[in-house]
Amino acid sequence: MELLKERILKDGHVKDADIIKVDGFLNHQIDIALMDAIGREFKRLFADEKITKVITIEASGIAIACFTALQFNVPLVFAKKSESKNIDGEVYKTTVTSFTHGRDYTVILEKRYLSPDDRIIIIDDILATGKAQRGLLDISAQAGATVVGIGIAIEKGFQGGGDALRKAGYNVQSLAIIDSMQDCKVKFRD
Amino acid sequence: MELLKERILKDGHVKDADIIKVDGFLNHQIDIALMDAIGREFKRLFADEKITKVITIEASGIAIACFTALQFNVPLVFAKKSESKNIDGEVYKTTVTSFTHGRDYTVILEKRYLSPDDRIIIIDDILATGKAQRGLLDISAQAGATVVGIGIAIEKGFQGGGDALRKAGYNVQSLAIIDSMQDCKVKFRD
Repeated sequence: MELLKERILKDGHVKDADIIKVDGFLNHQIDIALMDAIGREFKRLFADEKITKVITIEASGIAIACFTALQFNVPLVFAKKSESKNIDGEVYKTTVTSFTHGRDYTVILEKRYLSPDDRIIIIDDILATGKAQRGLLDISAQAGATVVGIGIAIEKGFQGGGDALRKAGYNVQSLAIIDSMQDCKVKFRD
Repeated sequence: MELLKERILKDGHVKDADIIKVDGFLNHQIDIALMDAIGREFKRLFADEKITKVITIEASGIAIACFTALQFNVPLVFAKKSESKNIDGEVYKTTVTSFTHGRDYTVILEKRYLSPDDRIIIIDDILATGKAQRGLLDISAQAGATVVGIGIAIEKGFQGGGDALRKAGYNVQSLAIIDSMQDCKVKFRD
């Protein structure tokens, strides 16, 4: 997606060979017009898939997932990162290791919100090692839901998570794939 | 807002005199059409205020804040609940006590995303004791930003946070105010 790639080049900040900050438009301050365009692009990419729900994980995937769900006219369900006293009933649970935060956390999703009847896309802002996405795949498998695809704004291709998921048979659609950030220069995959 | 009140009566579950679960449509599974309607209502309520940014706190305020920012055509900035190694630069910091989670957490917002030039509305899904909103007010004060108003989907009026903020001079607009949940019956403020 050219609009997103241009924005990464203009406003992304490479901090080292691993980390790029895109929090001026994607995951801290959020450019709503860009989110809307991203939602439309995911609609185009997964148009024929009869999606019933969009799934993401809190917090930075929620904005993109909202605008994707808006295009598909389906509910969004976001998995939650910790148990609160306000979660009851039966939940699906998994453990995710955060690359960004450097720790494990428990992720839950209430069983009533995901079922074998659901055809879902998993949406997230960043795909790096793929740990968060695999957590959502685990929850989807527990629910018996059909994962039609995985939609990602920015994939850090050099960390391998996206290609491993493709190898496992998932339809991973990343709007921008960064293959290298050597010498603070972003190189996109063709 | 009648649409929201009807939905609370239809799909909200009172768990005890303090807690109502609205996670079937507001903050776990999200009804996108309802979010869109809520965004339009906040636009109507704060139409003349020359808003430059919408501010919320992760995670459950993000969806409503997205659709509000969409209506105002301004960026959304969400305060983050913990430090990650991907936050650099100068940040505003405050401490918030979560009623739902029963613990304190640090909330941060990067300084570059909020300034004295900003006229903001604070948006959140639930207002109970007002702790989260006061955290965002603290951050806004540190930034020197002008808080034009506070927009809330559901205010638990009986917990007093909203009225205390009104008394302090803030323009708090809650789309549904619950004044009592005695005997599992929701009573709205007129």
